[in-house]
Amino acid sequence: MIGASGAFGFGIAIRLARAGVPIAIGSRQSERARETVARAAAAIPQGRFSAHDNAGAARAASTVILSVPFRNQSETLTNLAPALTPGQLLIDASVPLAAAVSGKATRMLGVWQGSAAQQAREMAPDGVRVVSALHTVSAASLTDLEHPLDQDVLLCGDAREDKRQAARLLELLGGTRCVDCGRLEMARITESLTALLISVNARYKSHAGIRLTGLPDPVWE
Amino acid sequence: MIGASGAFGFGIAIRLARAGVPIAIGSRQSERARETVARAAAAIPQGRFSAHDNAGAARAASTVILSVPFRNQSETLTNLAPALTPGQLLIDASVPLAAAVSGKATRMLGVWQGSAAQQAREMAPDGVRVVSALHTVSAASLTDLEHPLDQDVLLCGDAREDKRQAARLLELLGGTRCVDCGRLEMARITESLTALLISVNARYKSHAGIRLTGLPDPVWE
Repeated sequence: MIGASGAFGFGIAIRLARAGVPIAIGSRQSERARETVARAAAAIPQGRFSAHDNAGAARAASTVILSVPFRNQSETLTNLAPALTPGQLLIDASVPLAAAVSGKATRMLGVWQGSAAQQAREMAPDGVRVVSALHTVSAASLTDLEHPLDQDVLLCGDAREDKRQAARLLELLGGTRCVDCGRLEMARITESLTALLISVNARYKSHAGIRLTGLPDPVWE
Repeated sequence: MIGASGAFGFGIAIRLARAGVPIAIGSRQSERARETVARAAAAIPQGRFSAHDNAGAARAASTVILSVPFRNQSETLTNLAPALTPGQLLIDASVPLAAAVSGKATRMLGVWQGSAAQQAREMAPDGVRVVSALHTVSAASLTDLEHPLDQDVLLCGDAREDKRQAARLLELLGGTRCVDCGRLEMARITESLTALLISVNARYKSHAGIRLTGLPDPVWE
């Protein structure tokens, strides 16, 4: 987990740890990673957590989840790239909200590559498999461990097998069904759903998620 | 209904007629409108349908639903504008898919105003109230009268009362809950959901819709 000190990444970390997944938590400062591990261990006493700098966390796991604010995504990937190896799965949860440049959280920035996920793919070393996910899952829901999430996780990526692997992991969050939404370029749409849900939540004082209706059961054969 | 000869508009027309709403069907050629009325009356014998040219249909109703292909939206609005009057509600269902210029149906065109709905607002006379809706509802689901839609209709518009009025109408489609997604500018996101669902449907051979989870019940006080 790169970016687990924020509520969103923290929620993912503790939910996956609850399901038995060992979690390597990275931060720019190792001290901050240790603080996050202490908080995570308090929430999930049986969880297996370890603290690292970002590069150390990336080296410690076969799957890397990137959940940093968009304003830090590029810098983080620049620093992370030497630690990533071909074959690793990089799950990018970045959202280019206009809030990154002091704009509204209901508006998006245009990213030259098309989406934050495509920027991640461009910046990651060749052979790192990038899947975009988790943009419609709220931090508040993730950190509310009492309730199943009751929503879908929308996945975009260029290889079906990469998405299947991401799905196997992310369905461990609890109450989540992962849906294959197509190629990585579709991430420009799924990323924008964060802004849409922020707009909805402002109106309804809610922590809305998304379910797709009319899909076959199960969604992964 | 402007654009009821296509499956999408036709499905909306017959579902609303089934709920007792009188439907004025407009087409560029009145002959085509008459053919559509005949088809609609065959589907809903108790329905009240009338055939018009586009301007005639717009003059016949207080609410105008625009469901024409995006490549025709601008021309249709240019011709329709003299027939629209302040206070009318214009529900725009246009989607700027790249398919309009022979591109992929999973990709969007950039619209200078931000979205097709904002183009509609720019082109409609002052005082016409524009609400964007229906982009996540498939033609196949609409024309399948045996099944309730089991999905949400996402509404964008600048006035809560306009959205409430659109919701009262569109909840008559059957199985639809209408959700206030914010200002009209959010339509650039809801319009892009058509492309996302086309991508999902290509993978799952489905006619997927969207439900938002975690909202209060009821969503309209």
